[in-house]
Amino acid sequence: MTHEVDLPSAWFEALVSGAKVPLGEALTIAERGGETARALLGRLHSRSGVAHIIGITGPPGSGKSTLVNELAIHFANQGRRVGVVAVDPSSPFTGGAVLGDRVRMSRASAHEGVFIRSAASRGFLGGLARTTHDFVRVLDAVGYDPIIVETVGIGQSEVDVWQVAHTPVVVEAPGLGDSIQAMKAGVLEIAAIFCINKGDLPDADAKRRYLRELSTRAEDRTPGWKIPVVTTIADRGEGIGELAEAIGAHARYLRETNRLHALEHERAIAEIRASLQTTFVDVPLARAARSGMLRRLADAVASREMNAADAASALTRHVPTDGRIGESGA
Amino acid sequence: MTHEVDLPSAWFEALVSGAKVPLGEALTIAERGGETARALLGRLHSRSGVAHIIGITGPPGSGKSTLVNELAIHFANQGRRVGVVAVDPSSPFTGGAVLGDRVRMSRASAHEGVFIRSAASRGFLGGLARTTHDFVRVLDAVGYDPIIVETVGIGQSEVDVWQVAHTPVVVEAPGLGDSIQAMKAGVLEIAAIFCINKGDLPDADAKRRYLRELSTRAEDRTPGWKIPVVTTIADRGEGIGELAEAIGAHARYLRETNRLHALEHERAIAEIRASLQTTFVDVPLARAARSGMLRRLADAVASREMNAADAASALTRHVPTDGRIGESGA
Repeated sequence: MTHEVDLPSAWFEALVSGAKVPLGEALTIAERGGETARALLGRLHSRSGVAHIIGITGPPGSGKSTLVNELAIHFANQGRRVGVVAVDPSSPFTGGAVLGDRVRMSRASAHEGVFIRSAASRGFLGGLARTTHDFVRVLDAVGYDPIIVETVGIGQSEVDVWQVAHTPVVVEAPGLGDSIQAMKAGVLEIAAIFCINKGDLPDADAKRRYLRELSTRAEDRTPGWKIPVVTTIADRGEGIGELAEAIGAHARYLRETNRLHALEHERAIAEIRASLQTTFVDVPLARAARSGMLRRLADAVASREMNAADAASALTRHVPTDGRIGESGA
Repeated sequence: MTHEVDLPSAWFEALVSGAKVPLGEALTIAERGGETARALLGRLHSRSGVAHIIGITGPPGSGKSTLVNELAIHFANQGRRVGVVAVDPSSPFTGGAVLGDRVRMSRASAHEGVFIRSAASRGFLGGLARTTHDFVRVLDAVGYDPIIVETVGIGQSEVDVWQVAHTPVVVEAPGLGDSIQAMKAGVLEIAAIFCINKGDLPDADAKRRYLRELSTRAEDRTPGWKIPVVTTIADRGEGIGELAEAIGAHARYLRETNRLHALEHERAIAEIRASLQTTFVDVPLARAARSGMLRRLADAVASREMNAADAASALTRHVPTDGRIGESGA
């Protein structure tokens, strides 16, 4: 497929050689969406598919940002170029980001071999899943491997974003109560590795027993793979090597059992879904909000002159119907 | 706007008079989507907008289903017809529903004045938010007031569903650790009432102090309304009257300060969004999955012959472009 946007070739060469400045610019282009993003991703797509993608999630207080930090440094010290995508599903109501997490990640961001980028939620233009997928594609295409996707908190949006990962790691810590219970819808079901961080705290043994039991119960689901339960104390760097080894073992398992193909298929579906969502929901709503049309339609629905389906029909007249995708709302 | 589907008029009259059998059928029609649903919701829309909509959410283990049960009976005993929409965001991976909750609700379901319906997640056809909005519209239009929307668990999808509620109640219980922290993105920000259930357990005082502090901190956000902290012991029926009174006080506050209009505006936007999502994301994906097209496109993306945006473009040729919304995927 051809794209009308020409990318400067010297810039593109620098990008695919892995230089950090054009990489930062490329991620900004991908985040904005639109024709330029589409052209860029179109050119990079065939270079992607190399990186091992690690998902790390866990409840607030599990110390997963520190863990991601140490893990990124560990891989980088092996001579690998490590990409980190930190997903901040900021509240739709406050718009606030979890700044503390970013600050704690600074040790890795100073490392030559590590590139960190946040994917923030942007209200109506949302597209957090789309942005994450595109960030991973770009990092992958320019030679970052592994790529760590860190998600903050718990919920359906996390599950959506998580579909990008080959090796999903669930991080727990002692003293968080039933927090892992709150994750059970979708997150636990795809975990490949359990990690108990803050393993020096009391109650770590109880958590370990509990996670081992969950691992045993999951055996039917993952023939040939027993979910390991790894203990770390990330802020002292302990257990990071064991976690990295477990991740490597899972990567080998995926390759040797031919599961990588099925995972890539699922990931492709998630990407297609995210693209539809951006083009037909997020962008039209953002445009209609800017033009004042959304306000008028919402008022008509609220005053019961019109129902929501008819309002959505009226709004879709603003959707491009020539099949073009990735239109920017900017 | 005209609709091509004729609804049997005796059936429709029975429905709007509040009879339970046609109501159950109407909700099934709404759930299925398509032209019949659109015609039904189109006819009912102008009758809606009367009910007070109460949202109840809280972490697993907070006993909120028991609380919803008792609250529904309390309102029904005042001669009101009470609708309950129980939202089950079943895992996209297991498809399993939280059956325990439904069983615990059985006391209210036996009450003449209470009508309970679950809105289950349905994989690709998803549309949980759309289904919830439509269920509430139908119950509202046929005379149910109040309507209680109960959400299970925590996460972005809950926040989306929650936008339907006039009075969002967050339920907590002692002994759940930091569970309320996991809810902070979006849920706490819109809470109107805090409820500590299982108030006879140790640690209830600590939870109460914590929630009172949150309430104090939220005062700037809700001028004229101080979030009350109500203690209940739902399985003994204690505190239910106080909770109902707090809900009534919040309804009066919304009316007297003219905030109901702004809330209805937000709710209309959420409904329009849910309608777009169903029509342009969920239904096209479900159709493409059935026809085998999604599999072929996903394979092309996974093997890097095509990128996701181009695959989404190819898939949208299956989206009706005449502006019709609410097409069923069935």
